[in-house]
Amino acid sequence: MPRPAVVLLSGGLDSATAAAIAGSEGFDLFALSIDYGQRHRQELDAARRVAQSFGVRRHVVLAIDLGQFGASALTAAIDVPKSRTADEMATGIPITYVPARNTVFLSLALAYAETVAAADIFLGVNALDYSGYPDCRPEYVAAFERLANLATKAGVEGTLKFHVHAPLIHMTKAEIIRRGVELRVDFALTHSCYDPSPAGLACGQCDACLLRRKGFDEAGLADPLEYAT
Amino acid sequence: MPRPAVVLLSGGLDSATAAAIAGSEGFDLFALSIDYGQRHRQELDAARRVAQSFGVRRHVVLAIDLGQFGASALTAAIDVPKSRTADEMATGIPITYVPARNTVFLSLALAYAETVAAADIFLGVNALDYSGYPDCRPEYVAAFERLANLATKAGVEGTLKFHVHAPLIHMTKAEIIRRGVELRVDFALTHSCYDPSPAGLACGQCDACLLRRKGFDEAGLADPLEYAT
Repeated sequence: MPRPAVVLLSGGLDSATAAAIAGSEGFDLFALSIDYGQRHRQELDAARRVAQSFGVRRHVVLAIDLGQFGASALTAAIDVPKSRTADEMATGIPITYVPARNTVFLSLALAYAETVAAADIFLGVNALDYSGYPDCRPEYVAAFERLANLATKAGVEGTLKFHVHAPLIHMTKAEIIRRGVELRVDFALTHSCYDPSPAGLACGQCDACLLRRKGFDEAGLADPLEYAT
Repeated sequence: MPRPAVVLLSGGLDSATAAAIAGSEGFDLFALSIDYGQRHRQELDAARRVAQSFGVRRHVVLAIDLGQFGASALTAAIDVPKSRTADEMATGIPITYVPARNTVFLSLALAYAETVAAADIFLGVNALDYSGYPDCRPEYVAAFERLANLATKAGVEGTLKFHVHAPLIHMTKAEIIRRGVELRVDFALTHSCYDPSPAGLACGQCDACLLRRKGFDEAGLADPLEYAT
């Protein structure tokens, strides 16, 4: 009987690879995507396609309107920077930062995990995010794992020992892509762009597109995605 | 210029008193209530009345359907135990436990707080809850506060040092009620019952009603609430 695990699926290539790693370790996958009022519906459509491609046990898409906290809780009103260099991207916390996003996501993953008796939670944060987002760092993930075991009936009673897996955290984008390809992730299903065209094409020039394209280049692999530019 | 604080308001007497304490300390209140599919709409109605009575700056009622995680994520399908003794209540984690509830609530409060530049979050957990709920204990609150400062742009950049206030955590119900009365909380507006009558009357016999009645008794004060039995 495979053990259950909750996997946060954003629709991007990182979380798809994290899900593939969880599957390769024999976990029975319960996927969770959060509809928090993000700019693009394509992300959730991609998450649904990815979940289906993995044959997950259940995929919950949970709606929370973070926009109620104020416009600055979201990236909706912000112009997405284009064609930035790696140095520019490495400086400071990205404009696409959403307040406490991973804490909200992980807390919901924890509620889901306790409900389905899953001790394991997979999260696709990685070393590139790490440079910018506070809630993608190893010390953040460790602090959440510690909290999870204090916060829950299952943790306190010892029926589950929660483990937050961030298998990509020390990997480069190229390494993630190579690992995903090894695990037969269909990257054509994933969506990374912060600013897709009205027709749904990836812009090719935002930070997420640039990192993705550079990752495929460095991995020596062809990106199956079509770009607007 | 008063400093902003986010206050989690459940509609019960504890969170109303926590909000009154925050107000008495000069904070400008941003209230947050979570509609997570709880059994009774009265809770949210009470939260709205309480928020209004305090003249909060803004009251966000955020909907999240935790029931999507499975029926056991909620208390909806569970018979509420009645007429339990204090000893029975003190044993184990209450049946009304909702997986990771306070972690979900605090993570949303943190997102709200960072959005409105509030370093302070108030939570009405108390010593009676402490005996049963894992996410009402001081070590839990401390772990969340630590996480909050690792998790956020404001925490990492040092523009806000988050502080999670649980001013009731070491108080008995009688002490909470006395403090609330001192601060002119209108306890007639609050709702505590786990199993109100169809007409909205508190049942008088569930754990929450029994603790509340005992608290008013011990405080030597009259409970303004009408009970079904």
